[in-house]
Amino acid sequence: MNPKLVVRIVAVLLLVVSSFMILPIVVALYYREHGQIPSFVVTMLATMVLALVAFVLTSKTSQHLGTRDGFLMVTLSWMAAAAVGAMPFYLSGSIPRYVDAFFETMSGFSTTGATILTDIEALPHAMLFWRSFTHWLGGMGIIVLTVAIFPILGVGGLQLIKAEVPGPAVDKITPKITETAKTLWLIYLALTAAQTILLMLGGLNLFEGLTHTFGTLATGGFHPKSDSVGHYGSSYINIVTTVFMLMAGVNFILYFKTVTGRFWSVTRDTELKTYLGVFGITALGVSIALWVHGTYATLAESIEHGAFQVASILTTTGYVTADFNAWPPPAQTLLLVMMFVGGCSGSTGGGVKIVRVVTLVKLAISEMKYLLHPRGVFGVRLSGVPVRKDVVYSVAGFIVLYLMSVLMVTIVVGSSGADLVSAFSTALATLGNIGPGFGIIGAVENYAHYPDYIKWFLGVVMVMGRLEIFTVIVLFTPRFWKP
Amino acid sequence: MNPKLVVRIVAVLLLVVSSFMILPIVVALYYREHGQIPSFVVTMLATMVLALVAFVLTSKTSQHLGTRDGFLMVTLSWMAAAAVGAMPFYLSGSIPRYVDAFFETMSGFSTTGATILTDIEALPHAMLFWRSFTHWLGGMGIIVLTVAIFPILGVGGLQLIKAEVPGPAVDKITPKITETAKTLWLIYLALTAAQTILLMLGGLNLFEGLTHTFGTLATGGFHPKSDSVGHYGSSYINIVTTVFMLMAGVNFILYFKTVTGRFWSVTRDTELKTYLGVFGITALGVSIALWVHGTYATLAESIEHGAFQVASILTTTGYVTADFNAWPPPAQTLLLVMMFVGGCSGSTGGGVKIVRVVTLVKLAISEMKYLLHPRGVFGVRLSGVPVRKDVVYSVAGFIVLYLMSVLMVTIVVGSSGADLVSAFSTALATLGNIGPGFGIIGAVENYAHYPDYIKWFLGVVMVMGRLEIFTVIVLFTPRFWKP
Repeated sequence: MNPKLVVRIVAVLLLVVSSFMILPIVVALYYREHGQIPSFVVTMLATMVLALVAFVLTSKTSQHLGTRDGFLMVTLSWMAAAAVGAMPFYLSGSIPRYVDAFFETMSGFSTTGATILTDIEALPHAMLFWRSFTHWLGGMGIIVLTVAIFPILGVGGLQLIKAEVPGPAVDKITPKITETAKTLWLIYLALTAAQTILLMLGGLNLFEGLTHTFGTLATGGFHPKSDSVGHYGSSYINIVTTVFMLMAGVNFILYFKTVTGRFWSVTRDTELKTYLGVFGITALGVSIALWVHGTYATLAESIEHGAFQVASILTTTGYVTADFNAWPPPAQTLLLVMMFVGGCSGSTGGGVKIVRVVTLVKLAISEMKYLLHPRGVFGVRLSGVPVRKDVVYSVAGFIVLYLMSVLMVTIVVGSSGADLVSAFSTALATLGNIGPGFGIIGAVENYAHYPDYIKWFLGVVMVMGRLEIFTVIVLFTPRFWKP
Repeated sequence: MNPKLVVRIVAVLLLVVSSFMILPIVVALYYREHGQIPSFVVTMLATMVLALVAFVLTSKTSQHLGTRDGFLMVTLSWMAAAAVGAMPFYLSGSIPRYVDAFFETMSGFSTTGATILTDIEALPHAMLFWRSFTHWLGGMGIIVLTVAIFPILGVGGLQLIKAEVPGPAVDKITPKITETAKTLWLIYLALTAAQTILLMLGGLNLFEGLTHTFGTLATGGFHPKSDSVGHYGSSYINIVTTVFMLMAGVNFILYFKTVTGRFWSVTRDTELKTYLGVFGITALGVSIALWVHGTYATLAESIEHGAFQVASILTTTGYVTADFNAWPPPAQTLLLVMMFVGGCSGSTGGGVKIVRVVTLVKLAISEMKYLLHPRGVFGVRLSGVPVRKDVVYSVAGFIVLYLMSVLMVTIVVGSSGADLVSAFSTALATLGNIGPGFGIIGAVENYAHYPDYIKWFLGVVMVMGRLEIFTVIVLFTPRFWKP
């Protein structure tokens, strides 16, 4: 173990994260919310001093970052980023209690979008901007970002990125890891610009357009309005948001391939095809349920809201246009099923990820073939390529850990006295980085009423979900700390 | 494919099943319910005629039973047994509609214990006896029984038994398969006698003792009283039932080993140790929740009811002493988690089975070790023996299929307008052969209000659960029917 190097890198990451606080300061200046500026400035200064001290104290260290150091560093970075990111909310008094500020910030970075705020509109623009901006940073990953900016991390960069970028099948897309990180962030920036412009064409101002876009592309879910996207009541906004949520749920490497002329390989991608198929069928089912039930007057409206909500839950965004807890049961059931799925690997979406679901469904099918032809040999193929057995193994291991985690979180949340539905759906919504759920944390409800120990606990659960469980949970095994 | 032989064997099984209708006839005679006798006699005669016709029509057939014939035969047998077993309820008018009678009987054979009856006590003794007796037959398996009685099935017996006895690790325990089947049934008979006697010592009459025992040892859940075991309000009955439910959830091969002096190997059994561990910890948790919440006045009472309910749900029995839907949320949460587990392989319990859960948890742990030591080799061991990779594979495949089935059933049940909790818990309760659940199918509620198509569908789901999904679902694949 090399704790000194770990501390050094975490310090660099904190500097990167806190330097972005310049943006909410600009927002504060524009909206003449000068009272908000000190909390950001103080946080930035404090982080700098802290980082400087850390650098001095850890000056003599080797540059070797081992496997364990990597896990420790990634988890610590995220925890530290949330701890620092929460400071402006707390110092300014926008969120009076630190546990709430930490919860909200971790919910932001992890792109969960679960909120403890009961009156969102009461917050100043600067705070709302920072709140949504944490989504944007966390969506593509703060370590990926740091690697893109500081080549210093180049040495263990791929390994660290693998620990941070969702999905089992991430590889270098360009020969150099810093180039890969930069490419990912450039695609992300381009999409951000595109959606913001489209939203502004629909009548939103720059502030609204940006915050709305941060929540969309990071598959986050924080929105500057209490009634989320439903606030605008605009079909245009709904449709644009649906399309960009779906785009955020796609593996970003596919965009890179498309841009670099390898579109042919994109069309063969099993995960992408499944993702679009699952979305299409489920959206159709929900829309029909809404229409038959008469929730919306016309079929077009039913499709608009049905497709929106399915895209929102499937990609783990968590935006809402309507209170889906009041929707007809068949529509709710389909949404619940989507909570178990998630976006594509290498996307900003959370959850189990489509590629894992496909792998295991194909495993189940191959087991069925094997039953009929006990002497046959049946493997799992994705995008036309056979999947190695140990990959299937690790996918199965992940799913088991995921389900166990859901049940464990359900038990812990249940211990606070939350009813069964709320506890279970809180577990799905936080571990899957979705945000809203059913029961007391429903579409129009929030997490404010949970006791403090549940809020701290859910903070850890959200980062566990964002880093895909293994990375975080491995720190809690005795084996990890054995010399 | 050899459909003629399949029909022949199904005919034999129906003869075996219907011949047991002699027992409810005896009950009817004892209780002077002579009006009930014709419905049983007519069913028996009709089955005999049908079987005779089947024999004549299929007289010229080879004795070769292929893999596919086996799957077809096992599923058909169970469907046919429920179809015939439902006749007395329907003919006597005890259950006026055939769909309800079929549901109730399939719920019986599959040891689910989900009921459509709203006034159980209104049924004559003969009918209540037959209802509980279907549990007993289905618990150890009607094919295992037939193999035990008719050596004619000896040829493909092991394969058929493997399709019927739950769990991935069933093997011949004696050199001859008929001997194995006989041994299993003898153990089952001995336990039945023991529990019945103990219950009668507690004040129950023979009828009550037997029906209560059938529901316990088959991990069924049908009870001749509407308020289930809670009816007696007797700690003695509760404790005896708890112990025997737990015993029914143990792999019956372990009893055989104990009796034949191989107790040493029993103590090393990973599945048994896990099973008892899971029960102990969960029962403790539920009991404490009940006590702290003040649901019961004393700790002793809390443990009595907590342990009872945990054993009942874990073993998938479904007996209740109290309405657990009114219990404090933490207790409910723990019970929900138990619904995902189930008994041991080779027991009469349903669900996913402990051995599969343990295998996958160990897989997850070995994946975690692999993360820390990428060059290490970590396998899964059970009872000190390494588990072959293809076995782990098939376990993972099963779990995926199980979860997909739960979600699919949730969607179908949800389509009837059932709320989310009820739909989800109906799926868990029927596929896991548990019986009661949360929401509208809660501890003191039942399945009567579901529309007919849901009842037929759940009939198939229950047999799918009992035969562990693959056996049934394989029939619905195009590959199965390819020449």
